Amino acid sequence: MQAGSLLYEGKSKQVFDTSDPTKVVVRFTDQATAFNAQKVASITDKGRLNCAISARLFEEVGAAGVRHHMVERLTETDMLCERVDIVPVEVVVRTIVAGSFSRRYGRPDGERLPRPVVEWFYKSDELGDPLVGDDVVVALGWAEPWELTFMAQAALTTHAVLSRLWDRFDIDLVDAKYEFGRQEGRLLLADELTPDGSRLWEQGTGRPFDKDVFRKDLADLSDTYRALAERLLGS
Amino acid sequence: MQAGSLLYEGKSKQVFDTSDPTKVVVRFTDQATAFNAQKVASITDKGRLNCAISARLFEEVGAAGVRHHMVERLTETDMLCERVDIVPVEVVVRTIVAGSFSRRYGRPDGERLPRPVVEWFYKSDELGDPLVGDDVVVALGWAEPWELTFMAQAALTTHAVLSRLWDRFDIDLVDAKYEFGRQEGRLLLADELTPDGSRLWEQGTGRPFDKDVFRKDLADLSDTYRALAERLLGS
Repeated sequence: MQAGSLLYEGKSKQVFDTSDPTKVVVRFTDQATAFNAQKVASITDKGRLNCAISARLFEEVGAAGVRHHMVERLTETDMLCERVDIVPVEVVVRTIVAGSFSRRYGRPDGERLPRPVVEWFYKSDELGDPLVGDDVVVALGWAEPWELTFMAQAALTTHAVLSRLWDRFDIDLVDAKYEFGRQEGRLLLADELTPDGSRLWEQGTGRPFDKDVFRKDLADLSDTYRALAERLLGS
Repeated sequence: MQAGSLLYEGKSKQVFDTSDPTKVVVRFTDQATAFNAQKVASITDKGRLNCAISARLFEEVGAAGVRHHMVERLTETDMLCERVDIVPVEVVVRTIVAGSFSRRYGRPDGERLPRPVVEWFYKSDELGDPLVGDDVVVALGWAEPWELTFMAQAALTTHAVLSRLWDRFDIDLVDAKYEFGRQEGRLLLADELTPDGSRLWEQGTGRPFDKDVFRKDLADLSDTYRALAERLLGS
């Protein structure tokens, strides 16, 4: 299956159609953005590393019974995926307090929450992806009630599976963003599973292995992602 | 029943204990605040007017079956109420888009929502009363799941009753904040039902009869609340 014409260009991915109307090619690019794309850079190997990490993680959650959009990896940067309509609400699951949650509710960074929590954010670059409550999501037609329930459960399962996996490599999954897509009445875990959309802290040291390295200029992002991929993939 | 010692001083109310440990006196003051108390003023008659409006509205929702904290009006500014522990999450019900909702989700002021929606806000002056999702409210122990369900239903019932009432006076209830208190395992609608915590727009003209008049310096707040009370109470 080959990439056809460009359907959509995101901040760090391109999506192409294919000869099969139910499939797309997702290409991971080297672009990194932060602060709602106010900070942009090209990071060597980022596309290749994120594609490899994402493919490995989709396999892991798929084996645990979570239905996702990945069909197979095509090249170092390209993944064949189910074609879906992305739900305009993304799910953030948090295990440990960090970032906007810390500021919003005045809780210390690093506090372990009593249990993983789910938050919804309306996907809108112009509005800065605002937090949104369950009732507003449904009332404004962004998702059906059953979809909220489904996405919360699937995101919590995914998060639990990935937390266990990262724990094997002495890394805490602090929080992560999950997106879902609709395909003929079913919902699939979609988008990507990468350190761009998660916080990953080394246990003991708290060293970040995620995009905060880029946001806060803490280290070289390419080196950081390469080190993370080496832990996960052993290569 | 007489007011004893001051238990709590809010932005526009004082709460006193009484000889009955299950009751308090709520006194409505003339103070007005806006923008998280960055703007403060004393408004002639505001305490008296808000006490009268609130008493009338608690009677109305009580008659519709919503349990609330008001026992009786004691004086022009004082109300005898059940003593409750306020739930740290307030409920905002919106019928028409305005204010922060408009900015947050990029919807035009004045848009009528498909149905009234419920939002939760964590009560914290220091944090500016941040929006919070259902799951975080429960996970952080701010309310039990049954309390969220109860508060959403009671707030929607209250909002429907008050919307019908204001409609009789050619006024739209645009949005309103509701607070609940716990007393021996039950929840009561508490706090106040006043134009300080609601948006009330005259039908046709859109003239505001609420605290936006003070926030935006649109007219004299005392005159505005007096005109509103005259419509509602015919005095």
